[in-house]
Amino acid sequence: MLHAVIPAGGSGTRLWPLSRATNPKFLHPLTGTAETLIQATVARLAPVAALGDTYVVTGVAHAPGIARQLPDLPDSNILIEPSPRDSCAAIGLAAAVIAQRDPEAVMGSFAADHLVRDGARFVEVLRDAEAGARRGLLMTVGITPTHPETGYGYLQCGKTVDGPIRTVDEFKEKPSLDVATEYVRSGRYLWNASMFVWRVDVFLKELRRQQPELHDGLIRIAAAWDTADRDRVLGEIWPTLPKISVDYAVMEGAAAAGLVATVPGDFGWNDVGDFHTLGDVLPADDAGNVIVGDSATLDGGKPEVLLHDSAGTVVVPQSGRLVAALGMRDVIVVDTPDAVLVCPRDRAQDVKKLVDELKERGDSRI
Amino acid sequence: MLHAVIPAGGSGTRLWPLSRATNPKFLHPLTGTAETLIQATVARLAPVAALGDTYVVTGVAHAPGIARQLPDLPDSNILIEPSPRDSCAAIGLAAAVIAQRDPEAVMGSFAADHLVRDGARFVEVLRDAEAGARRGLLMTVGITPTHPETGYGYLQCGKTVDGPIRTVDEFKEKPSLDVATEYVRSGRYLWNASMFVWRVDVFLKELRRQQPELHDGLIRIAAAWDTADRDRVLGEIWPTLPKISVDYAVMEGAAAAGLVATVPGDFGWNDVGDFHTLGDVLPADDAGNVIVGDSATLDGGKPEVLLHDSAGTVVVPQSGRLVAALGMRDVIVVDTPDAVLVCPRDRAQDVKKLVDELKERGDSRI
Repeated sequence: MLHAVIPAGGSGTRLWPLSRATNPKFLHPLTGTAETLIQATVARLAPVAALGDTYVVTGVAHAPGIARQLPDLPDSNILIEPSPRDSCAAIGLAAAVIAQRDPEAVMGSFAADHLVRDGARFVEVLRDAEAGARRGLLMTVGITPTHPETGYGYLQCGKTVDGPIRTVDEFKEKPSLDVATEYVRSGRYLWNASMFVWRVDVFLKELRRQQPELHDGLIRIAAAWDTADRDRVLGEIWPTLPKISVDYAVMEGAAAAGLVATVPGDFGWNDVGDFHTLGDVLPADDAGNVIVGDSATLDGGKPEVLLHDSAGTVVVPQSGRLVAALGMRDVIVVDTPDAVLVCPRDRAQDVKKLVDELKERGDSRI
Repeated sequence: MLHAVIPAGGSGTRLWPLSRATNPKFLHPLTGTAETLIQATVARLAPVAALGDTYVVTGVAHAPGIARQLPDLPDSNILIEPSPRDSCAAIGLAAAVIAQRDPEAVMGSFAADHLVRDGARFVEVLRDAEAGARRGLLMTVGITPTHPETGYGYLQCGKTVDGPIRTVDEFKEKPSLDVATEYVRSGRYLWNASMFVWRVDVFLKELRRQQPELHDGLIRIAAAWDTADRDRVLGEIWPTLPKISVDYAVMEGAAAAGLVATVPGDFGWNDVGDFHTLGDVLPADDAGNVIVGDSATLDGGKPEVLLHDSAGTVVVPQSGRLVAALGMRDVIVVDTPDAVLVCPRDRAQDVKKLVDELKERGDSRI
């Protein structure tokens, strides 16, 4: 069994106007059921991590929403960062707090806002990763690429360690399309989905080696975590911690030292980065139309969505109003209480440009 | 000078969800300014008809809205039909009431929900029509066709009477595309826009000849109109009146009798039948985008409409929410407090199918 850590941050600007700085995507039911993404993440991890061993790391803004959406998660397992200090501080805090409670623990870290189609296969892969972690490796779960995606980093795999476990020789930044195509063709690369499984003692040792200041700060915070001093120590030390990603701070150096390995994940992973992607992963009607969210149900006989001669649309009805599309192909329609978006699916990536434009204008609806 | 009659009826289902049974298109600001269509209609007629000689004929549902939008129109000039009895009863009621007040009057009848681009030219054409009416002709203002439209009836013109006035030999039903193309090619046909100008005595005489029952009922109602008996007589007689259009009841027979003539109208007429048409007639930005209605203005620096890399769109922001379009071409987006519509401009005619579908489902949002 694992200790599960779920970093919950990032607003998902490509999912505007649904996802907002104040209402990020992991709090939304983008799963094809009434479950929100973070609820689905916790449910997916239940076979490998008891709820008492499941942690969410988040900022002050979203902690109340998370607490309400996960009523059975112990209060003390919601780790609230006083301010954003990037992923190494977030994940490192969880590792240090868990080590304080169980020095032998194996922890896995999984984003709050990803979707997995095949939950059983996901659990199998995690058990393989756990086996690697128990051997003292910093394990990643890489995603078997389905196309030459330029929006993700890649893991360059090396020799086989045991069974499906292979070493990771290098972490690669987001590539150009040519490079990504070559990566996929070679069969040696996996998508870096920021899923990690490791013994907390192994991770903390590597953190101490590469980022001693960050390590020492986190250890001092963790020592105070289950005491009356938590707030004071956290408030004192947290703002001084280096702001750095876990890949850059620890994983790249650990890979160079031969400490990182991976198991390939082929469980239908999706990072729900934009509405087009969301449309690909959720169940569609016969014409390929996807209606997102639990409000798509009939409300006293009144449809929330009326599609007439339309195909391939992604409709997100989130205001209770009727959304009607007539003769539309491959278009996204997102309806929220204060903003509506219409955009072709192949422009879904550019939604963040709209958010940038609104931000420039000082518009609060972002 | 004329007496102006404005029949205000019909909900405009192709303008759903903006236009509703309870909130028809003539009450909406679809003019490119803050004016509603009926306000623009009254303003357009001001050079030829005093406000005291201007009448609106409407049903019980819309009378309050009309009264509020036209605060200077005398109460007694809003003629309220107890129930819909088609256009001959509506226009005939106005003719009979006007004849009661001024037997020599020339009246013109103009729909409440049409747009005219060149108001000065419109007035010139009306003066020509008035001249024909004073000679004892039932005048129509036909619209010089700009394309072989199959959605309108046509007037078949005959010999020249005087100046621009020509006889109308026949009223033609909505034609097929082939027939419409031949009509336009021949130069002998005008669109029938249901604009009429006539002496009330001439019209009522022709009504008596062709529809004696309707004529007698309307005369009895008109006699009671400015008395304490109005409600009683109206309530008694109105429900018994034949339900028939003025074209079918009077104009076709009058044309056969050589009593109908026309002046061609070349003043940029548009019947605002659907959102595509509306987009053609209202001012557009450099990319051909049209924003309809007075709420398109900035509200404290917050845009109501945000168009990014979009062209040829028709956006109707009527809920106060932000409407954002990214990468859209030639599409209609209509945003109202309880429904939003997305549809390509070339499918604008089919919006009524959505309304039919909602009606079948018993949905009240129509």
